[in-house]
Amino acid sequence: MSKVFSKKVSESKVETTYMVLPEHTNPLGNIFGGTIMAWVDITASIAAHRHCREQVVTAAVDELHFLHPVKLGDLVTLKASVNYVGTRSVEVGVKVIAENPISGMCKHTSSAYLVFVALDNSGKAQKLPELILESDEDKRRFAEGKKRQEHRKSARKPRAS
Amino acid sequence: MSKVFSKKVSESKVETTYMVLPEHTNPLGNIFGGTIMAWVDITASIAAHRHCREQVVTAAVDELHFLHPVKLGDLVTLKASVNYVGTRSVEVGVKVIAENPISGMCKHTSSAYLVFVALDNSGKAQKLPELILESDEDKRRFAEGKKRQEHRKSARKPRAS
Amino acid sequence: MSKVFSKKVSESKVETTYMVLPEHTNPLGNIFGGTIMAWVDITASIAAHRHCREQVVTAAVDELHFLHPVKLGDLVTLKASVNYVGTRSVEVGVKVIAENPISGMCKHTSSAYLVFVALDNSGKAQKLPELILESDEDKRRFAEGKKRQEHRKSARKPRAS
Amino acid sequence: MSKVFSKKVSESKVETTYMVLPEHTNPLGNIFGGTIMAWVDITASIAAHRHCREQVVTAAVDELHFLHPVKLGDLVTLKASVNYVGTRSVEVGVKVIAENPISGMCKHTSSAYLVFVALDNSGKAQKLPELILESDEDKRRFAEGKKRQEHRKSARKPRAS
Amino acid sequence: MSKVFSKKVSESKVETTYMVLPEHTNPLGNIFGGTIMAWVDITASIAAHRHCREQVVTAAVDELHFLHPVKLGDLVTLKASVNYVGTRSVEVGVKVIAENPISGMCKHTSSAYLVFVALDNSGKAQKLPELILESDEDKRRFAEGKKRQEHRKSARKPRAS
Amino acid sequence: MSKVFSKKVSESKVETTYMVLPEHTNPLGNIFGGTIMAWVDITASIAAHRHCREQVVTAAVDELHFLHPVKLGDLVTLKASVNYVGTRSVEVGVKVIAENPISGMCKHTSSAYLVFVALDNSGKAQKLPELILESDEDKRRFAEGKKRQEHRKSARKPRAS
Repeated sequence: MSKVFSKKVSESKVETTYMVLPEHTNPLGNIFGGTIMAWVDITASIAAHRHCREQVVTAAVDELHFLHPVKLGDLVTLKASVNYVGTRSVEVGVKVIAENPISGMCKHTSSAYLVFVALDNSGKAQKLPELILESDEDKRRFAEGKKRQEHRKSARKPRAS
Repeated sequence: MSKVFSKKVSESKVETTYMVLPEHTNPLGNIFGGTIMAWVDITASIAAHRHCREQVVTAAVDELHFLHPVKLGDLVTLKASVNYVGTRSVEVGVKVIAENPISGMCKHTSSAYLVFVALDNSGKAQKLPELILESDEDKRRFAEGKKRQEHRKSARKPRAS
Repeated sequence: MSKVFSKKVSESKVETTYMVLPEHTNPLGNIFGGTIMAWVDITASIAAHRHCREQVVTAAVDELHFLHPVKLGDLVTLKASVNYVGTRSVEVGVKVIAENPISGMCKHTSSAYLVFVALDNSGKAQKLPELILESDEDKRRFAEGKKRQEHRKSARKPRAS
Repeated sequence: MSKVFSKKVSESKVETTYMVLPEHTNPLGNIFGGTIMAWVDITASIAAHRHCREQVVTAAVDELHFLHPVKLGDLVTLKASVNYVGTRSVEVGVKVIAENPISGMCKHTSSAYLVFVALDNSGKAQKLPELILESDEDKRRFAEGKKRQEHRKSARKPRAS
Repeated sequence: MSKVFSKKVSESKVETTYMVLPEHTNPLGNIFGGTIMAWVDITASIAAHRHCREQVVTAAVDELHFLHPVKLGDLVTLKASVNYVGTRSVEVGVKVIAENPISGMCKHTSSAYLVFVALDNSGKAQKLPELILESDEDKRRFAEGKKRQEHRKSARKPRAS
Repeated sequence: MSKVFSKKVSESKVETTYMVLPEHTNPLGNIFGGTIMAWVDITASIAAHRHCREQVVTAAVDELHFLHPVKLGDLVTLKASVNYVGTRSVEVGVKVIAENPISGMCKHTSSAYLVFVALDNSGKAQKLPELILESDEDKRRFAEGKKRQEHRKSARKPRAS
């Protein structure tokens, strides 16, 4: 199959809805921050896969805030789309929305930016398809993603020493 | 049991070692970023529990980098300790080290800072025990944690819009 | 919150995408039929929750065919929408699409119809919001779902004796 | 090891008992329909493995009814046996019984018929050992399974379009 | 419901067959000792539940040997039955058999004796139904179980100091 | 990397802390004995890996007592260290401590001795690095481990017949 050299944002969008089950919660019936992080990572990685059509690995996750508690039984929807594509990395934005299953009330609980790199079978980073920017919003997100990626490169070192 | 009003850093330290099993990996045999994030969250939350002796929930996670691939069979050690305690929140630092089980080679793959808030049964945030700073390192970490917490308060809003 | 007495099909639609991980597969790297069935059930139950805004339980699943093998690493998208609402039960249709993450090739592997009943806290079945039929397709699906539900009522008895 | 060309029903029978744990239930403490479906599939696939002594994959599941709620803590027993063997497929019947662990009361909650095909290493369907029919019940089940398999062949196409 | 004061061994027997999946194995494709131990515990606890018809908790497990490696894809059958009932505890024996799914070859890989105590809602240990000993084997097992229980009482203290 | 021929006890020590989550408990909110056994096995196997730097498999587990109930939300710390190294096997001792997350009260709930054998790629047992005994406690543990291993060799046969 011949490789595609550029793709629209809409071609790799992902939406997923989970129900919060007992295995996702702490002893008080609140979801773990770690469960949301794991869902954010897998949803973003599917978007990255769809853009790159290569195996991808997570390189970085930006600062995440958990703005509202998410409870046992809530429905959690994650929406991921590619913001920015650099030479060897792709930034994906993820929005997390918690929905009360009885009232239908929705709250935007978290947002995240993740960076993925695509690897070929030898583990070497790959050149990636370009992102076709159609709308003004696509362009704004691309510009912001580029700025964040420059910031990350400067911050990329272990901490908590 | 009477509540304790101040605690040393060493009283809430946590160390945990996991083995990377098939259920933690992607189809290529690399660990998911999301698995590491979930382990970071639970380890940090245990340190926060031990300091606060109250139910705690994750409020924020700072930027995370994954510096080295972690493979099926690797041993992953997480070390968490409390850096900073504010009026209603506690910052925990976590260091993630991946160890090849055969060669014994260790790599520092990630570091993370997480913020927790303690809740009483009514869900209200609690006043927390103070942190006793014994060494110069304790003091340096406390000062840095305080600075990061001030930065987070300004950044605390949903993004990826 | 006042209850809503009728809803459009689009108000309860669900879409979810999973990646097939080692924990979902048999020793040959094919997904278990049972994993797909569990995903179908949870996705359909989210659509039923959104329509009913009550706790729902699965009452029946129609005949399911697995038309193509689904492999480790594939992306599986499930699309669920409410077809038919009776006095005390709701029928949800689910479409399962498997996508090769590298080639992007998609295959429609399964379709399913599930019936849910909504329960109040005492476990009694509830009267449900009506379904607003907007398009010809909505009407066709409703008519077909009604016919299937009449068939199911006659077939509802244990078998495999 | 030389292949066996015919086998009795009793040579591939399977019985399994699970306890319903928090990870199997919805937020109300009822088992998910999807959990029962996954258990039905794995139990039936063990019977199919034992008859065929080849890798098997699920090709179809007939209509399933959930006649009684199954609760957290219940014991669920699944009994699977081969009903019918065609040229390239085998039908397995599964009976699901829920037992209250304190009262010992048992209820027949579901029955299912599943079809498996055996694959060799190249993924090609295999010729299967014949089924030795000893009792009148064996013969009745075989005849009914044959009729169902003919019905399934005509129904084998994606739906929920 | 009136309580039963004595029961036959056959009334609480349990048999369960699992397939060894990727989530049960170490990176080499061998089952974890810990997975077998967890299966032994749950199977034995079902037998104890059926005898006692009360909530039971594991009090002790005797020495366990793993005589043969168990591999990804193997079928593992566990057979549990009550050996001995004392004033407040019940001993259950479990036999573990691994079956190669292709050759059908079976190996007896482990045996285990576990002790359970039944608790009422206040957490107090309960008086248990007596065991009706029908065969010579029932009597031999009961006598051996009694001897082991006397040994355990003397050994019941933490070690690995 | 050249193989090491002797190692100190401290070079392979492991400490791990888990939080008891809904997925680890029975319907009453007590941890399963089987969950503790699985944690004991994995923690001990990490110590054995670190000493041997080869793939290891569990060969035996000695008698285990569960002295105190462990509840949903408790913190469970496991400490494992190598006691004894024979020609082809290594004995690891594990201490299990349950901590109430609110009161901080700790209880020593179990202790365990496990035996591992190291395998090379062909599945053959390996000659292992010697254990350097530094303290009197190291020497006492080694002597006791040696005595237990001699006892195990005589007991190594299937039971529960």
